[in-house]
Amino acid sequence: MEFAFSAEVEALRDQLSAFMAEHVLPADPAFRAAASSGRHAVEILEPLKARAREAGLWNLFLPALRDDEPGTRLSNLAYAPLAEIMGRVPWSAEVFNCSAPDTGNMELLHLCATPAQRERWLMPLLDGTIRSCVAITEPGVASSDPTNLKTTIRRDGDTFVVNGRKWFTTGALHPACRFAILMGVTDERPDADPHARHSMVIVPLDTPGVEIVRNLPIMGHLAPEGHCEVDFEDVRIPAANLLGEAGRGFALAQARLGPGRVHHCMRSIGQCELALELMADRAMAREAFGRPLADFANIQDWIALSRMQIDQARLYVLRTAWLMDRDGNKAARAEVSAIKLVVSRLQTEVLDRAIQVFGAMGLTDDTPLAHLWTWGRALRFVDGPDEVHLRTVARAELRRARHRATGAGPGS
Amino acid sequence: MEFAFSAEVEALRDQLSAFMAEHVLPADPAFRAAASSGRHAVEILEPLKARAREAGLWNLFLPALRDDEPGTRLSNLAYAPLAEIMGRVPWSAEVFNCSAPDTGNMELLHLCATPAQRERWLMPLLDGTIRSCVAITEPGVASSDPTNLKTTIRRDGDTFVVNGRKWFTTGALHPACRFAILMGVTDERPDADPHARHSMVIVPLDTPGVEIVRNLPIMGHLAPEGHCEVDFEDVRIPAANLLGEAGRGFALAQARLGPGRVHHCMRSIGQCELALELMADRAMAREAFGRPLADFANIQDWIALSRMQIDQARLYVLRTAWLMDRDGNKAARAEVSAIKLVVSRLQTEVLDRAIQVFGAMGLTDDTPLAHLWTWGRALRFVDGPDEVHLRTVARAELRRARHRATGAGPGS
Amino acid sequence: MEFAFSAEVEALRDQLSAFMAEHVLPADPAFRAAASSGRHAVEILEPLKARAREAGLWNLFLPALRDDEPGTRLSNLAYAPLAEIMGRVPWSAEVFNCSAPDTGNMELLHLCATPAQRERWLMPLLDGTIRSCVAITEPGVASSDPTNLKTTIRRDGDTFVVNGRKWFTTGALHPACRFAILMGVTDERPDADPHARHSMVIVPLDTPGVEIVRNLPIMGHLAPEGHCEVDFEDVRIPAANLLGEAGRGFALAQARLGPGRVHHCMRSIGQCELALELMADRAMAREAFGRPLADFANIQDWIALSRMQIDQARLYVLRTAWLMDRDGNKAARAEVSAIKLVVSRLQTEVLDRAIQVFGAMGLTDDTPLAHLWTWGRALRFVDGPDEVHLRTVARAELRRARHRATGAGPGS
Amino acid sequence: MEFAFSAEVEALRDQLSAFMAEHVLPADPAFRAAASSGRHAVEILEPLKARAREAGLWNLFLPALRDDEPGTRLSNLAYAPLAEIMGRVPWSAEVFNCSAPDTGNMELLHLCATPAQRERWLMPLLDGTIRSCVAITEPGVASSDPTNLKTTIRRDGDTFVVNGRKWFTTGALHPACRFAILMGVTDERPDADPHARHSMVIVPLDTPGVEIVRNLPIMGHLAPEGHCEVDFEDVRIPAANLLGEAGRGFALAQARLGPGRVHHCMRSIGQCELALELMADRAMAREAFGRPLADFANIQDWIALSRMQIDQARLYVLRTAWLMDRDGNKAARAEVSAIKLVVSRLQTEVLDRAIQVFGAMGLTDDTPLAHLWTWGRALRFVDGPDEVHLRTVARAELRRARHRATGAGPGS
Repeated sequence: MEFAFSAEVEALRDQLSAFMAEHVLPADPAFRAAASSGRHAVEILEPLKARAREAGLWNLFLPALRDDEPGTRLSNLAYAPLAEIMGRVPWSAEVFNCSAPDTGNMELLHLCATPAQRERWLMPLLDGTIRSCVAITEPGVASSDPTNLKTTIRRDGDTFVVNGRKWFTTGALHPACRFAILMGVTDERPDADPHARHSMVIVPLDTPGVEIVRNLPIMGHLAPEGHCEVDFEDVRIPAANLLGEAGRGFALAQARLGPGRVHHCMRSIGQCELALELMADRAMAREAFGRPLADFANIQDWIALSRMQIDQARLYVLRTAWLMDRDGNKAARAEVSAIKLVVSRLQTEVLDRAIQVFGAMGLTDDTPLAHLWTWGRALRFVDGPDEVHLRTVARAELRRARHRATGAGPGS
Repeated sequence: MEFAFSAEVEALRDQLSAFMAEHVLPADPAFRAAASSGRHAVEILEPLKARAREAGLWNLFLPALRDDEPGTRLSNLAYAPLAEIMGRVPWSAEVFNCSAPDTGNMELLHLCATPAQRERWLMPLLDGTIRSCVAITEPGVASSDPTNLKTTIRRDGDTFVVNGRKWFTTGALHPACRFAILMGVTDERPDADPHARHSMVIVPLDTPGVEIVRNLPIMGHLAPEGHCEVDFEDVRIPAANLLGEAGRGFALAQARLGPGRVHHCMRSIGQCELALELMADRAMAREAFGRPLADFANIQDWIALSRMQIDQARLYVLRTAWLMDRDGNKAARAEVSAIKLVVSRLQTEVLDRAIQVFGAMGLTDDTPLAHLWTWGRALRFVDGPDEVHLRTVARAELRRARHRATGAGPGS
Repeated sequence: MEFAFSAEVEALRDQLSAFMAEHVLPADPAFRAAASSGRHAVEILEPLKARAREAGLWNLFLPALRDDEPGTRLSNLAYAPLAEIMGRVPWSAEVFNCSAPDTGNMELLHLCATPAQRERWLMPLLDGTIRSCVAITEPGVASSDPTNLKTTIRRDGDTFVVNGRKWFTTGALHPACRFAILMGVTDERPDADPHARHSMVIVPLDTPGVEIVRNLPIMGHLAPEGHCEVDFEDVRIPAANLLGEAGRGFALAQARLGPGRVHHCMRSIGQCELALELMADRAMAREAFGRPLADFANIQDWIALSRMQIDQARLYVLRTAWLMDRDGNKAARAEVSAIKLVVSRLQTEVLDRAIQVFGAMGLTDDTPLAHLWTWGRALRFVDGPDEVHLRTVARAELRRARHRATGAGPGS
Repeated sequence: MEFAFSAEVEALRDQLSAFMAEHVLPADPAFRAAASSGRHAVEILEPLKARAREAGLWNLFLPALRDDEPGTRLSNLAYAPLAEIMGRVPWSAEVFNCSAPDTGNMELLHLCATPAQRERWLMPLLDGTIRSCVAITEPGVASSDPTNLKTTIRRDGDTFVVNGRKWFTTGALHPACRFAILMGVTDERPDADPHARHSMVIVPLDTPGVEIVRNLPIMGHLAPEGHCEVDFEDVRIPAANLLGEAGRGFALAQARLGPGRVHHCMRSIGQCELALELMADRAMAREAFGRPLADFANIQDWIALSRMQIDQARLYVLRTAWLMDRDGNKAARAEVSAIKLVVSRLQTEVLDRAIQVFGAMGLTDDTPLAHLWTWGRALRFVDGPDEVHLRTVARAELRRARHRATGAGPGS
């Protein structure tokens, strides 16, 4: 057991922090101003991407990166602290070609793309020349139980015909977004195994019948790259756009989620650290009743609790990344659910405290706190609501109890 | 002790609920659509105001209403359940001329306006022909300790000259807004009693030197009527615009706050009730894992806890209104702080649960939940941050302890 | 709506407080010393009982008290604030013949006793010459779902034969305890309505086959009057000992519980008030880092939150008592569950804070805090675990939702 | 970074678990029965101690163990998971000579004992032939601020004279307890540095003037080995009994606490794991409303949250142990405070949930839960109240903020 990062990781952390300080932070005001006026500022991103790629800070998230693919190959455990650093400037992950949902899509394609799919869709993603999105969640269905997803993917000769409505399709309005990975029903027989009825397909966004209905505000905030509601009406795609085998949609979705949740969590932890720093700085600088806020015991309590919670959560996420590296994503399934829940709750909690220390200013856009607080709230649904993750963790625990009762093996 | 509303109040509740159902709810979509595009829809409000005034549902908030003033005179306790009903549609209080911050301004003017001030400013407010705002909070000062407010009001012959910057001046962008009640320092001697250095004056918004710098987003949401940052630079107003006596600014602010907090609290409770209804309805209608959400014990717990917290909070607020009616606003000071804290925390908590039951939809504007949740967060600063109210309540309790220790009288 | 107590109730509160100060508090050290050595000090209680009865402070809990029965008849709402005063000295309720479980047994017998039962069991209880206990809970059955209770009551000619094991039979070791009201299965047919299979009977404790197996420690504390595990083996009682009709056990149990929960709650509130007083006194008297604890913002927060929670809970309980008086116990069923949950959680929370202010001394028996804290924990099971009450409140709320959906009547 | 235990540690864990299963668990009922009747069962302990020492499971807690001292030398990080295993049976640490407060005393003597002190007091402790206790806390002084400790240690020729009263002196009633390490004032000059006025001395318990006044109940529970109030009246000890230098009392106390807190925390984590196991087992076995408790979403939530909190806390404690091994106890000071707070709160929380799953049975001594819950509450004072630890962590964080503000070095 060893809690220090390796020398290689420490060196990358230094390099990335320096890059952020030198190139990303100075661009932040302009990027955010563009976002406020509804624009995803690709003209700011592109030169930064070129510079990052040149520096070797590219595709760091993909442990399975091949030698003929661009970027620096790192384990999940090695990448995690880098994601934390990126998290401090929410839009910066794209600079390093490490932004969701493309990361998950690259993983997934890496896992199951045919050579043609690889050439056509994966390589441009790895090069950062196109973006992609994911169309899973549907307006009428509780995402806690995806077996109810209703969008249909019907075989018709050499094509599939897609019909349905998706929402929370993040990134669909990105100027470079070219395709969605879509989940739908391929086996409509009523008696089919509910976990083997769905498949995933690649839907190019310029296919006739694909319509972005609206960009959904998240807690009053409209992201320029979009959290979109998308309508699919008689959308015809080549049968070759099937990902993996038919009926394996859930298995693929599951495979896709593990590392992505670690990334989300580490970015959140970076944002919580930022909030804690801002909170402590403000507590030193601001006075009430003749003393700095930092002298008040309740403010001290918030600072201390935040430190304790963040440090625990970070260890928990890192250990999960280590477990995935060692035993595979599937073995870490309960842990992945656990960190997802812990960290998204943490984000709202730490941000709430920071806002309170800032007073009414914390409500405005003069600090990043308000946006990070509302985003923390949204994270409690992203990749499944809290309740699903609690259930997953509880069931793993109850499985252990069953093994104790029956004297069977240890369980996971 | 009697927990039923009087027959008169029950009749008014029925009348108001019917008015809401018949006139306000049908106008809600159009009003909200206008607000989304940045407009305070006075063309919707004005006919509703005329109708409400005709129906006697006018100025219900002002226990001291004189016979020669328009509206129906009610005690704080009688008005409270009506404010709860209005709270369900946040913009509706203005229909009944019961919206903040005008209500507080009317109370204040009622208390201390000169005959000329009454004629010029109070009567049009009571008639609903003009609106007003309040300029107290300053960007550089912790609102928990208002003795630090820095804006100056300097006497110069027959005029005052105002210099300073205010923010969170709510309503300044309302098309009918005509004046601000502003708090500033009139006694700049360093050795003056810090609680007697400030005064309140009326500043007409069209006075040269008044500049609305920007409308502050609250958790990403821009209110069309504005939460404004306002600059006052060499603003000259008549000396006759002083409210009450010089140096009595805090006393007036205090007097102004009691009933307003009861109104805020009851409107919040109305919004929590609405959220609880939506949550229960959704739990019945939505399924996961083959059962309605209402069958899951954790969802049931949220519903039950919300019911218990709302019912307790309502009783607490009503008792405070009763106390103000019986013993005066000042006697209820600790209780007013207590309800302010309890209810603003309650709003975030109940809304958070409702959002969770709605799933990702709860994040969007397809329900009122997201906006009410963020507004609940803002309420934890409106009229003073939580910490000030906790301190007020604690000090009242410690005063009692001191009386026990010394055998002195009972304390408040 | 009126939040002041009536003049009659105020007078009784004064009288009771004076009685407590003059007679009960001076006896408290001796009573507690006896309890520590395992003895229920009847020699202290008896003269106090005589004095209380003489003063008219007797059987105050029973709204249905007849003119020919001893004591002062009060509504639930009038009695509630008196129970709060009694709660400050946990053993004192017996002084006024207002202690559980006798109060519930007297209510129940009042409701359904035959003339012979009334003469034999109820009148001595009302006179305070005997005590009684309740045998419902069983070791092997989740009390959240009493339909599983297994003890059998079999008819055999003119007698019933009782077999089974009960626990948490409170008061069975009281020197004057003479009988138990026992719940068991009288209808053993497997297809019988599970809510109509149980009945209640009176079991004299000196009947052969009744054995008090042990006194259960509650969080390490052994009550001298006993929370007992009791074995019933072939216990033969007269058929005339049936309470009400056969198969009506649950209905009777339900009827019995409402007022008793109000009493429990108000006594708890009295204990929370006591804890808040002790906490505030201690915070004034104790120093750390050169300042009294009362100066620290976190301690102030605890004091303020306790005040707010106690005041809200008291209003909630009083309103429930008022509702029971007005509409009957059954109409207030959800509210009774709600106050039970709110107050038992409150007790642990307020006591926990008080202990923390007292430091390690709060762990010892040098203050009443440790015992009241553990008792608060036990209250979360007494009269049903939290989860049952949450479920009851949620179901009432969901019933309202169903009525909204179907346009049916208002629900309760 | 590596989250697996080393092969050596895994082997020791297996060995210790086997020892517990084979020798300790079978003795548990008899040991607890003796404790219930007020006796510390040395006749059970002694043979187990001999066996443990023989097996090399001896003095595992002392990283600085010399080759000529009995036992197996382990780092803090290696010992931590063994302490977790011992924690499952609270009395078992003594079997391995790893029980508080002897462990801390051995560390302290190891650090600063003179050769004579080493021979006379340390070696028998290491051999397990005597026991010891600690006399620091005083009834009249807030332990959050130990500079107020009042017991005096006055030089009189070749002796010191000790006067004062201590309490929470744990272990003083152990049959083998021979001495106390006592903290008191050696520099009574009013202008002395308040952090350099106190010293530590060895006080043999058989010295005239030492009187054990009483054994303090902790939440109603009397430990046979005692949490004692001890009076010291004109107690004369040799001047050679001074530990380290005069005036260094706090520095020594600080040095003594770090590893001890790690031990406490890991034992607590073992107890939380045990509670989680019992909770899950019970949830599988118990039914309500026709389904096992494990099917209810609220019970699942408790299980899941407990798993997440325990796993995070364990990582946090292990990382702190690693930090102490790498950088020394002092460098880990904020972390030691942090884990102390996190784990003692965790214990009450997890145990509370387990009790709730067990129903009323959880209140009794039929499971270990009630005792572990109350002990968890006590832990929030042991080694300093929560508030001191929050303050320590906050101040470390604010120090970092100050460094950021001034551009100074990184701080710890």
